[in-house]
Amino acid sequence: MSKKTLTGNCFEDFTPGQTLLHATPRTVTTGDVALYQALYGGRFAMASSDSFARRIGLPGAPLDDLLVFHIVFGKTVPDISTNAVANLGYAEGRFLRPVFAGETLKTVSDVIGVRETSNHKAGVVYVRSRGENQDGKAVLEYVRWVMVRKRDPESPAPVPVVPDLAESVTATDLVVPAGLRLEAYDLAAAGSPHLWDDYTIGERIDHIDGMTIEEAEHMMATRLYQNTAKVHFNQHAQRRGRFGRRLVYGGHIISLARALSFNGLANAQWIAAMNGGRHVAPTFAGDTIYAWSEIIDKATLNGRNDIGALRIRTRAFKDREASTLADPNGRAEKDPYHEALVLDFDYWALIPTRRT
Amino acid sequence: MSKKTLTGNCFEDFTPGQTLLHATPRTVTTGDVALYQALYGGRFAMASSDSFARRIGLPGAPLDDLLVFHIVFGKTVPDISTNAVANLGYAEGRFLRPVFAGETLKTVSDVIGVRETSNHKAGVVYVRSRGENQDGKAVLEYVRWVMVRKRDPESPAPVPVVPDLAESVTATDLVVPAGLRLEAYDLAAAGSPHLWDDYTIGERIDHIDGMTIEEAEHMMATRLYQNTAKVHFNQHAQRRGRFGRRLVYGGHIISLARALSFNGLANAQWIAAMNGGRHVAPTFAGDTIYAWSEIIDKATLNGRNDIGALRIRTRAFKDREASTLADPNGRAEKDPYHEALVLDFDYWALIPTRRT
Amino acid sequence: MSKKTLTGNCFEDFTPGQTLLHATPRTVTTGDVALYQALYGGRFAMASSDSFARRIGLPGAPLDDLLVFHIVFGKTVPDISTNAVANLGYAEGRFLRPVFAGETLKTVSDVIGVRETSNHKAGVVYVRSRGENQDGKAVLEYVRWVMVRKRDPESPAPVPVVPDLAESVTATDLVVPAGLRLEAYDLAAAGSPHLWDDYTIGERIDHIDGMTIEEAEHMMATRLYQNTAKVHFNQHAQRRGRFGRRLVYGGHIISLARALSFNGLANAQWIAAMNGGRHVAPTFAGDTIYAWSEIIDKATLNGRNDIGALRIRTRAFKDREASTLADPNGRAEKDPYHEALVLDFDYWALIPTRRT
Repeated sequence: MSKKTLTGNCFEDFTPGQTLLHATPRTVTTGDVALYQALYGGRFAMASSDSFARRIGLPGAPLDDLLVFHIVFGKTVPDISTNAVANLGYAEGRFLRPVFAGETLKTVSDVIGVRETSNHKAGVVYVRSRGENQDGKAVLEYVRWVMVRKRDPESPAPVPVVPDLAESVTATDLVVPAGLRLEAYDLAAAGSPHLWDDYTIGERIDHIDGMTIEEAEHMMATRLYQNTAKVHFNQHAQRRGRFGRRLVYGGHIISLARALSFNGLANAQWIAAMNGGRHVAPTFAGDTIYAWSEIIDKATLNGRNDIGALRIRTRAFKDREASTLADPNGRAEKDPYHEALVLDFDYWALIPTRRT
Repeated sequence: MSKKTLTGNCFEDFTPGQTLLHATPRTVTTGDVALYQALYGGRFAMASSDSFARRIGLPGAPLDDLLVFHIVFGKTVPDISTNAVANLGYAEGRFLRPVFAGETLKTVSDVIGVRETSNHKAGVVYVRSRGENQDGKAVLEYVRWVMVRKRDPESPAPVPVVPDLAESVTATDLVVPAGLRLEAYDLAAAGSPHLWDDYTIGERIDHIDGMTIEEAEHMMATRLYQNTAKVHFNQHAQRRGRFGRRLVYGGHIISLARALSFNGLANAQWIAAMNGGRHVAPTFAGDTIYAWSEIIDKATLNGRNDIGALRIRTRAFKDREASTLADPNGRAEKDPYHEALVLDFDYWALIPTRRT
Repeated sequence: MSKKTLTGNCFEDFTPGQTLLHATPRTVTTGDVALYQALYGGRFAMASSDSFARRIGLPGAPLDDLLVFHIVFGKTVPDISTNAVANLGYAEGRFLRPVFAGETLKTVSDVIGVRETSNHKAGVVYVRSRGENQDGKAVLEYVRWVMVRKRDPESPAPVPVVPDLAESVTATDLVVPAGLRLEAYDLAAAGSPHLWDDYTIGERIDHIDGMTIEEAEHMMATRLYQNTAKVHFNQHAQRRGRFGRRLVYGGHIISLARALSFNGLANAQWIAAMNGGRHVAPTFAGDTIYAWSEIIDKATLNGRNDIGALRIRTRAFKDREASTLADPNGRAEKDPYHEALVLDFDYWALIPTRRT
């Protein structure tokens, strides 16, 4: 057989300072928006309605931030994580510019760290990835680290470089979409009267509803993002694997949890930053996802009194309503519900204040 | 847990005269049109082709009427039927204006009746809902009544108000889309030579084909409509419920039956009114839907001789071809096929006459 | 029941020289593009990115050639193959003009041959079908032959007419999209450095990945194409049939195999011709599709040194990786893997040369 087939980079192929130009630029359209709607059922007004978005100073409804994230992320998979053993984490994610239908996205990654594992079979690769629009303007950046298999366990270990990553994005670094004006913000259309001032640190919000995942749904989503990770698509191979089943792309769970969080966070419409995310356990078709969120910080934004930020920690569970968890945290050492936790996601959202 | 999560209105929350501004306006796009196509497989030419639509005086292909209905309807669910015990009926539905990709829909409902049930546990709520476009122009209105749980069985019953609803929309109230001109109507492109003059009252048309429903399909459809009714999405909760399964949104069956009805009614392209609809039995993934229609009335339209109206009663069955029904009605007291009937839908459609 | 329901043409209804104007013109949109993306996960840059397409002289990203084929083909099904016993083959398929979102497609077929089968129960019908855009310009043409049931085995056999079909499209008949200029072709964005010069006749490329098919996916695809063949949609009827299951539309497998072939053929972005295609065995939901391709010919194109053509034979298998096939051909008389072969597809693709 020919050698033209790409089999992905191994740990040895990554060097700090290296830049990867990922393939397949992608024009995003209202078709993507409709599919995202059908896959998750979101109801945040700004991403749903051109009229709503125009009333607050935008040219039209921007794409859901997570749709942008998934598309930007998907492009990195063939180069970064085809040979991944484990996805370890995300940090310093920031949404820098809203994306509108008709724009074209591409992704560039800088390798910012490498560290071989102690067993010499793999290594951790740190990349800072940047999504750009057709004009080369950054729309999103984030750091991800992933454990990648070595081609040859005997190959020498590189000098370890481990980047110093922030525990969370600083509120002063959050970007408010250009032109946003909130005087005409329509609370009835948005679906909730609760604004920045009404949330308190430590407040916990049960998003109540559950959503069951089907194979066709998570595969359609993941292909929409041009994410090629094999574990999501190939039952013939997965049958012989560790779980015996196709795994659901972790980002699919983030989007489901975020869509469920409309009930309780309807005005927290803009994801401004992703501080971290951990896919605690795999999910499979047939699982029903529930979520609850905790307000873990609040911040005012430089020079604006009409909008503030909430730092939100959303945990998603499978086949377990948040209300039935002894400790809603679901993670205490002896908690019988520990197994139900699938996602721990930490982000900043922007939300209008009562000053609007 | 926080009290910010919405748990829906109970019977006590509804008062005649009350107006509900439903949340989440929605810009409809060609993305929605493509998904609707993929979900139901419709072949009516006007909604499929800009060229066809322009030849008959429209600015482009309008959205399928039922897609508009589902989106307008979906917005009412969180406010009206989150705590519904049963969907009881529809009446006086009229399509007032075609909707095109790029328009933004919102929904407003007026409570027009309340009546407590005799067991004091619930009450019937009647609402007249109106879908509006971005200019505030009505595109659709209909009455729906639904039995809603009381928060407290001890709370006092309201003075009963029961609206007087028409058995069907009067033909003189049917609205022909503005600008419609039928001289250049293309019968070959439309797929059938049969026009208004060719249908007779009492005529029965077997639409022959069957369509099997998958979980992923009805859930994607229902999320596309931003309909949040829990019974459609949560297998973890439904497993313990009456049916043990997720229920398919009743509107999904209406759309399937309507798409099947192309075969026999290809020129009846415009739904002008919905006289009534009854979801006779629940449907589930795995069911195969068949349908047949009966012409129950015909009407000419004021001032036009190029277009007329057919009043059509479409019945949908699960796992039973219409041709195998002893009585195609399928509803006689001792009919062994009674269980197969899932939908009884009564509507007016506009169709060109031989004068075109 | 009424006689207005169409039940499709039988063998007796076809006569050489006859022209069929197929129903339901279809405006294609970015919604269709997004669904096609979600269904197959393709990564060819030209169909994915307006920016990429504009850099090479096109007005924007054209629709994937196979999406155009499926839509043009779907229209012929109600007239040609509703009563088909077997799909026998394709030939002389040529893509004549790229199609862009917003264009409207229709299909016209000429009957070019008929031949009754020896058992007098059916006959082979040959049609040349032509997809046209809203201006009546041809975008695609192909020949298909199919065995169609006779209405009456006693009806007399027609004079047999069997067209003389080319074994493959001649390279000089391949059409390069108007305006295509390759100086600014971006190899990094396209995802591969391999160009026309790098491929050799006889070269075999294993596309490695496998994709499992779900019922919801192939049914959504097939409805998107307005293809009405009953065997794809109706489990209630299929349960009693030969396979006991719904059959996947053969074109769905072509699209899956083509999407998988990105890995190894990333720059072979334009399908210029379909020389032939054989659906060797049926596929069903749950099957995992793998594919490998063989370069069976190469050609230069008249008057251009920047682009050439590869004749590619792609074979798709179910539940069998190409690498595990004793003979990758998978078709030797005693080959135990013979049963795994589902598709044998022969096409010409255009690909930039090193002169660009």
